[in-house]
Amino acid sequence: MAQTYRKADVLVSEVGPRDGLQSLSTSMPLDLKQAWIQAEAAAGVAEIEVGSFVPARLLPQLADTAQVVRFAKTLPGLTVAVLVPNLKGAEAAIEAGADKITLPVSASETHSLRNVRRTHAQMIDEATAIAQLIRSLPPERRPHFEGGLSTAFGCTLEGAIPDATLVGLAEQLMQAGCDEVGLSDTAGYANPAQVRRLVRLVRAAVGDAALSGLHLHNTRGLGLANALAGLEEGITTLDASLGGLGGCPFAPGASGNIVTEDLVFMLEAMGLRTGIDLDRLMEVRRSLAQWLPGEAVYGFLSEAGPPLDFASAG
Amino acid sequence: MAQTYRKADVLVSEVGPRDGLQSLSTSMPLDLKQAWIQAEAAAGVAEIEVGSFVPARLLPQLADTAQVVRFAKTLPGLTVAVLVPNLKGAEAAIEAGADKITLPVSASETHSLRNVRRTHAQMIDEATAIAQLIRSLPPERRPHFEGGLSTAFGCTLEGAIPDATLVGLAEQLMQAGCDEVGLSDTAGYANPAQVRRLVRLVRAAVGDAALSGLHLHNTRGLGLANALAGLEEGITTLDASLGGLGGCPFAPGASGNIVTEDLVFMLEAMGLRTGIDLDRLMEVRRSLAQWLPGEAVYGFLSEAGPPLDFASAG
Repeated sequence: MAQTYRKADVLVSEVGPRDGLQSLSTSMPLDLKQAWIQAEAAAGVAEIEVGSFVPARLLPQLADTAQVVRFAKTLPGLTVAVLVPNLKGAEAAIEAGADKITLPVSASETHSLRNVRRTHAQMIDEATAIAQLIRSLPPERRPHFEGGLSTAFGCTLEGAIPDATLVGLAEQLMQAGCDEVGLSDTAGYANPAQVRRLVRLVRAAVGDAALSGLHLHNTRGLGLANALAGLEEGITTLDASLGGLGGCPFAPGASGNIVTEDLVFMLEAMGLRTGIDLDRLMEVRRSLAQWLPGEAVYGFLSEAGPPLDFASAG
Repeated sequence: MAQTYRKADVLVSEVGPRDGLQSLSTSMPLDLKQAWIQAEAAAGVAEIEVGSFVPARLLPQLADTAQVVRFAKTLPGLTVAVLVPNLKGAEAAIEAGADKITLPVSASETHSLRNVRRTHAQMIDEATAIAQLIRSLPPERRPHFEGGLSTAFGCTLEGAIPDATLVGLAEQLMQAGCDEVGLSDTAGYANPAQVRRLVRLVRAAVGDAALSGLHLHNTRGLGLANALAGLEEGITTLDASLGGLGGCPFAPGASGNIVTEDLVFMLEAMGLRTGIDLDRLMEVRRSLAQWLPGEAVYGFLSEAGPPLDFASAG
């Protein structure tokens, strides 16, 4: 993992194969998932969330996640990330060989109960069990373990999340044995001032190194402004979805990850290295649109093209 | 004017009746322009660019600008702004009673020649003549005079603009007698790092008070991130267009002002006061969409609605 961070100023983590595909009513065939992941890794994307170890009856679109992980692990230099809802999912993820596992924990307990039928306390127990499992493995088989604080910036069911709730969960996740926590704007409620404030607040509680990543949505058009606010607070990992595919099916109106290619364009135009070849990334986007006929893809750069004389940061 | 700045932390200047309407193939009838401006002023928008004093054969959509200005001047507390391409336009603007006139000067001389058939030197002469005209007026009739540096962040014809060209033009416009200069991202090329850098650079040359405003486009999706960068550099005036209507018809692919309602949402969510009632603004947007059947309107907030528990800054 460390080499990934050295190659680039910002790690753009592609979540489309998970967050994007889980929102579609149809399932992308395994060979196309593999082609997508292979092409995006070849374009320089160093981390891809390739699936989620949830029961196939809940998300049939991701039922082949174990196969996708095993394929993605053959791609040189790629960090293969997955979501897991619980210990059982973590066992499957480790069995498949995932490099990074994220346990989503909703800062809104209402959302948590609605989404995974578990209280905060039950989710912390789950995190503890997963961390114990990881520690029982030989070091070379241990995945990086992130506690992903979803609805961190507000919830469509509860509204604002009290600071103490968010900070308390972050502390408990780190105490449970997570390597880091992340903040997710599941509902697309975040604003730049709030991003700055909550990143500072959580970092003050768990340490700067324990919060490096944000998962932002563009539901209300503030996605890249929020990303900028995060960068200015020292955030170094930003999730995004190629073509803006996807969102959270359990939070009404919460569609719309920030668009990978628009984010990469912003970062490179600012002189921040992503390690990603934007031209090749745009080719992958065109392929993706062909592979998903009838599905909405989003983004601005694809319409306007890069500026005259645009050169990536390298 | 001063009272406008005291009422709000950020002055959101609506440019839709000028920048939006000039991009449409049809002309909005005078009574609808008046209804739009009246409704938006009533929603708390304190400055509106209501038209442009260009020959009617070039922009027939804005041929009634003098009448629009005279109507807008009846609205209490509204700063009535217009564009003028030259001295003749400024004479007409002053005759009609405009509070603020902006002379667009393209930082790209190629764009200037293509757009208004004038060199930089000729545009500075025009600014000098307008400033002399203004100084010849009794103080109470003098409009605020802005030199608007278009293509400041790059040009679809020339690409990047040398810093020295931009700074030199800003200095010459202030020496010619402008009250302030503004920076416009006509081509939608700006990125947040560049916004910070150029705002600092121009302010270092002309003084902080002489650069308070940015005119940003969302062509490549970075509009609100660029606005945030500007705010963080102390910018206090941001142009925007309701429903994202419009763009520059002379710069290919350069459509898309930042969306007024999305900008106001971002600012208010951040705790910055705009003086604008977002609910009433959204009503004006709905009216605008009805008044312009078949025309594209943009924006995210209109799709998603405000967050649960959202309260404006007041």
